[in-house]
Amino acid sequence: MTALLESYSAGRWYAATDEGRPVLDAVTGEEVARISSTGLDLGAMVAHARTVGAPALAELTFHERAGLLKAVAKHLTGLKDELHELSFRTGATRRDSAVDIDGGIGTVFSIASKATRELPNDTIHLDGGLERLGREGTFLGQHVWTSRPGVAVQVNAFNFPVWGFLEKLAPAFLAGAPTIVKPAAQTAYLTELVVRRTIESGLLPDGTLQLLAGSPAGLLDELGVQDRVAFTGSAHTAGLLRNHPSVLHGGVELTVEADSLNCSILGPDVTEEDPELDLFVRSVVAEMTVKAGQKCTAIRRVLVPRALAATVTEAIAARLATVVVGDPRSDAVRMGALVSLEQREEVRKAIQSLRASSEIVFGDPDHVDVVDADAERGAFLSPALLRAADGAVEPHDVEPFGPVSTVVAYDGVADAVRLAARGRGSLVASVVTRDPAVARSVVLGLAPWHGRVLVLDRDDAAEAAAAGGHGSPLPALVHGGPGRAGGGEELGGIRGVLHHMQRTAVQASPEMLTAITGRWTTGSRRAVGDVHPFRKSLADLRVGDAIASAPRRVTLADIDHFAEFTGDTFYAHTDPEAAAANPLFGGIVAHGYLVVSLAAGLFVDPDPGPVLANFGVDSLRFLTPVKADDTIAVTLTVKQITPRTNADYGEVRWDAVVANAGGEPVATYDVLTLVAKEWPPTPA
Amino acid sequence: MTALLESYSAGRWYAATDEGRPVLDAVTGEEVARISSTGLDLGAMVAHARTVGAPALAELTFHERAGLLKAVAKHLTGLKDELHELSFRTGATRRDSAVDIDGGIGTVFSIASKATRELPNDTIHLDGGLERLGREGTFLGQHVWTSRPGVAVQVNAFNFPVWGFLEKLAPAFLAGAPTIVKPAAQTAYLTELVVRRTIESGLLPDGTLQLLAGSPAGLLDELGVQDRVAFTGSAHTAGLLRNHPSVLHGGVELTVEADSLNCSILGPDVTEEDPELDLFVRSVVAEMTVKAGQKCTAIRRVLVPRALAATVTEAIAARLATVVVGDPRSDAVRMGALVSLEQREEVRKAIQSLRASSEIVFGDPDHVDVVDADAERGAFLSPALLRAADGAVEPHDVEPFGPVSTVVAYDGVADAVRLAARGRGSLVASVVTRDPAVARSVVLGLAPWHGRVLVLDRDDAAEAAAAGGHGSPLPALVHGGPGRAGGGEELGGIRGVLHHMQRTAVQASPEMLTAITGRWTTGSRRAVGDVHPFRKSLADLRVGDAIASAPRRVTLADIDHFAEFTGDTFYAHTDPEAAAANPLFGGIVAHGYLVVSLAAGLFVDPDPGPVLANFGVDSLRFLTPVKADDTIAVTLTVKQITPRTNADYGEVRWDAVVANAGGEPVATYDVLTLVAKEWPPTPA
Repeated sequence: MTALLESYSAGRWYAATDEGRPVLDAVTGEEVARISSTGLDLGAMVAHARTVGAPALAELTFHERAGLLKAVAKHLTGLKDELHELSFRTGATRRDSAVDIDGGIGTVFSIASKATRELPNDTIHLDGGLERLGREGTFLGQHVWTSRPGVAVQVNAFNFPVWGFLEKLAPAFLAGAPTIVKPAAQTAYLTELVVRRTIESGLLPDGTLQLLAGSPAGLLDELGVQDRVAFTGSAHTAGLLRNHPSVLHGGVELTVEADSLNCSILGPDVTEEDPELDLFVRSVVAEMTVKAGQKCTAIRRVLVPRALAATVTEAIAARLATVVVGDPRSDAVRMGALVSLEQREEVRKAIQSLRASSEIVFGDPDHVDVVDADAERGAFLSPALLRAADGAVEPHDVEPFGPVSTVVAYDGVADAVRLAARGRGSLVASVVTRDPAVARSVVLGLAPWHGRVLVLDRDDAAEAAAAGGHGSPLPALVHGGPGRAGGGEELGGIRGVLHHMQRTAVQASPEMLTAITGRWTTGSRRAVGDVHPFRKSLADLRVGDAIASAPRRVTLADIDHFAEFTGDTFYAHTDPEAAAANPLFGGIVAHGYLVVSLAAGLFVDPDPGPVLANFGVDSLRFLTPVKADDTIAVTLTVKQITPRTNADYGEVRWDAVVANAGGEPVATYDVLTLVAKEWPPTPA
Repeated sequence: MTALLESYSAGRWYAATDEGRPVLDAVTGEEVARISSTGLDLGAMVAHARTVGAPALAELTFHERAGLLKAVAKHLTGLKDELHELSFRTGATRRDSAVDIDGGIGTVFSIASKATRELPNDTIHLDGGLERLGREGTFLGQHVWTSRPGVAVQVNAFNFPVWGFLEKLAPAFLAGAPTIVKPAAQTAYLTELVVRRTIESGLLPDGTLQLLAGSPAGLLDELGVQDRVAFTGSAHTAGLLRNHPSVLHGGVELTVEADSLNCSILGPDVTEEDPELDLFVRSVVAEMTVKAGQKCTAIRRVLVPRALAATVTEAIAARLATVVVGDPRSDAVRMGALVSLEQREEVRKAIQSLRASSEIVFGDPDHVDVVDADAERGAFLSPALLRAADGAVEPHDVEPFGPVSTVVAYDGVADAVRLAARGRGSLVASVVTRDPAVARSVVLGLAPWHGRVLVLDRDDAAEAAAAGGHGSPLPALVHGGPGRAGGGEELGGIRGVLHHMQRTAVQASPEMLTAITGRWTTGSRRAVGDVHPFRKSLADLRVGDAIASAPRRVTLADIDHFAEFTGDTFYAHTDPEAAAANPLFGGIVAHGYLVVSLAAGLFVDPDPGPVLANFGVDSLRFLTPVKADDTIAVTLTVKQITPRTNADYGEVRWDAVVANAGGEPVATYDVLTLVAKEWPPTPA
């Protein structure tokens, strides 16, 4: 008897009190492990996550959480060989496993990097700008994102035991939510391995990651308002979850990624001579055969202009004929096994349903030649291509979760979009076209029905293929789809992080908003002291530290000179008559660039010090024209301080207001600088 | 017998085939109208919205939709007196009706203005920046928001028959979704009037607004993947809706705003001498009595430091004793009637439940003195204040939807936050404090449980009260709350618009992305022609029009001179030795402001023309230092064109790239200009 997979609960590994049920090797039919969660205290797991995991995460900033995730990804990178070896038993080829394992690790790196760049080094994230709620500016609104003191439960599908786990873990962890992962039984041994290696690394705080190997029955009963369940799997199971009292009445947030009848459309502009035709055929075949078509993003519907339907069908069939099926360890093999014999039966049934209105043009569901394997003990299945009769219903309704696609002919762009929409909401669609007008019209038609739309042509084909093509969710882009696809949304950089957080509108005085958000708010106090803030290192600098400059008069000679020196002789700066006729100026005005250049001269502290560089300016607006002999002065205030975790400096954002003698703001902007953490720097 | 309220369906007013049931005046008990939707073809309504309304909206840009909404708001402003007069019959005082009617109209103005400022003059809205999906830049990702070809159904509560309708209509309309409004029966006559006046104005395209006066039974059966139901009402009804097959399995999006046991917390720092104590008391009494407490945002739980609990309770009771109840038309009256006798019974029952663990300290649920009215025929009820025993459960669980609040004592900030969270998710909480540390700690504790948190102190009190205080959702801020409050989110400026739209990740080559989004994408073709683009009016200018400037050498003399002229003598520009020691520069570098000033000199076309002004710069980043004798050139490309609907000019956003002789970008930024629609302008 093989070993029982253990759950990881409340800081220790737990073995069920019974023998569990066997999980079989997809290729050989041998038992790989047994699985059971009998006796596991789910309430204790949830409590541990809430009382130990969540508080530990709350102590860490977004950047610190990102640092831990990167360390985990690095640790797992060193263990890829072990993971790949075990992954063969799921039926996956090395290429399939790369999508799952390397893709999963890469996703963690990518999202952690994005969080470091796009989130503050803090535990609270601002959403949008300040809203002025009264004329005097004493009452302001600011939306903020904060962490929920709850648990992120992930209930995963069998097809990506590593990627599915990691792509959900990373955003939740960044958001401050401890994870309980429930893998699908068929491939739970691989998730168990990657969780075990992660726990062994000791990198993640206690309580932030737990594993439920076995049945999740009763888990939802333990959840409440602050908890979130992310489910990937069948629409049927999704319906059961939606119907659970904790979801219906208990306030548990449920996000679903379920069935999806994705399509790929060959543009009506593509001819047999265009390279786009071959791109289309290759893309369809890749999606049918990678992971033996067991991908929620695979192309199930192949929409082709009627005139080319036969040609394209033949080309796909010809290419499918070259696909070698068999032991995924074999170098000759292109497509491995389905995950289980049960899964093969499911797919055969789906093909049978499709045959009500479509004919098989390639592949025999009941027979396939295999290399280095036993075609009956392993869950092998031939790729199958079908051609739908006109008006067929089943291709838009039946999802064969295997190497199966159906060609559907369409008549014109509107018909293609209409057919695509008959999937009632999908994860992804692609269109292969060389015509920008076709691209625009098809993409805008598809967009409301899809979470992702790919446009393929000769220009992006190489890099699109390198990025995984039609079927590959990418960490920077959202993954999910409306309607039948579940209505959920994951990934998309920090979008996926924010889905785990609560958005709240905070209304307060400027002073209170500064205290609450940690970011200086217009209208709150400035600390203008004896020390120029450019002389302060990050260790000493505080939000609100400010300098109010001396005034400077801007003369006509200055404007003339600047025009001549820079070459910016725009008439509003040089031609009194023409400038007078300008509806916005009514006379000679100083260049905006002159105003901000002079402002820098007014606020700068020239000697070497902790301020290393001005690396940018944001949201510069010229509000009031500066005329000859106007006097300007600038106030510069520390708005936000972002220490970098892996450098001896950080970013300081300064609020800059240039005002005229009447106190009217003439220009407002943010100045971005790099400032040393210590000054003088400690010798290395 | 009074008139039967009509529904507005598929372009005509429809009267039910039966007599309907009576709707009574809240104050007098007289019949106001009858209501029924018997015989109404709900399927035809939905079909009309989809096939007539949605396509009409799809033809309009965000700005055009905003213009129509503003016109409607203006039209309704002229009809306020009529609406106010009818509103008395709901039991509302003039002040109550102002929240509903004036507040509703103001919300439309506000959201329409925000849409004009923050959305493009287009039908597609970009979300976030470009994502580079490959090293060569041939494959990019861009998230876009598009309109769904579906229907926005609003199912409203009785308490805000005008505001509830308009605050949901405006975001849906802007998003391109036609609305079907289903008002609550008790006050449907007021919604019917405002819908009728809106339809009569002829301002809205056919099919974009329909009214269902009567039962919505069967409506959800007609809805599908692209449709959205926004429900405001009881958690019980929300549970029924969540359980509907169209929601469970049909992909209908449901958003809910339901029960909410909002609290207000008096900070532990506040003493009897502080003005904050009085602010707190006034705020609680206002929330109890406005709309006779029939507001989903009203304060149900009054959390007070134990030491002050008796003082505060007495102060609230004393103030409540001055509240005059009676005919809302009477000038002396401060609080009118509840909406119906049934509603009064509900509230009495809720008070009875609360009494299990709280004692009544003010008010008799069975008796109230009224002015100019009959206390039994009208749905009058005394305000009631309760004081909870320690450990009371009911105050956190029972929502008396009337003029009722319960005082709960707390011990320390953590306890206050813990008690607040026992509401299991609320729309809004407030904290009255003068201490920034208390504000930060309470707000961050409350935020995950609330959609909105108000911090009140002497600084913002006046403007906060003018904006409606604790109980007032504002168009610029999100309205909704997690958990028991329903988990929905409305308003929040364009956030509420985007909730009606689909976010999609589009992957394509730069050229295709430019075609799809209508915005020039880095990497796609530039049109450098004979005519300088500054010579083109909006009528001639096209996305992609560009100028590639001549080069200019930046000399040490230029840098020296700029330093002296502007006063920006930062050592990196003036002191060779110190500059050499700077870790980022390693020698004298040109000022960033010098680089952009010279770039303007390189790209500008000096003569009067359609470009009226440069009003700002966005996202300026200095990427590579410019050293003495480096040569720079600039490329300026039209990125986005936004004609203003109500002006003879529009905004043009230019992509600016300054590069050195080696082609490396040294600075990138967006230049913002105002450009005339025609040039020369047609004489007025």
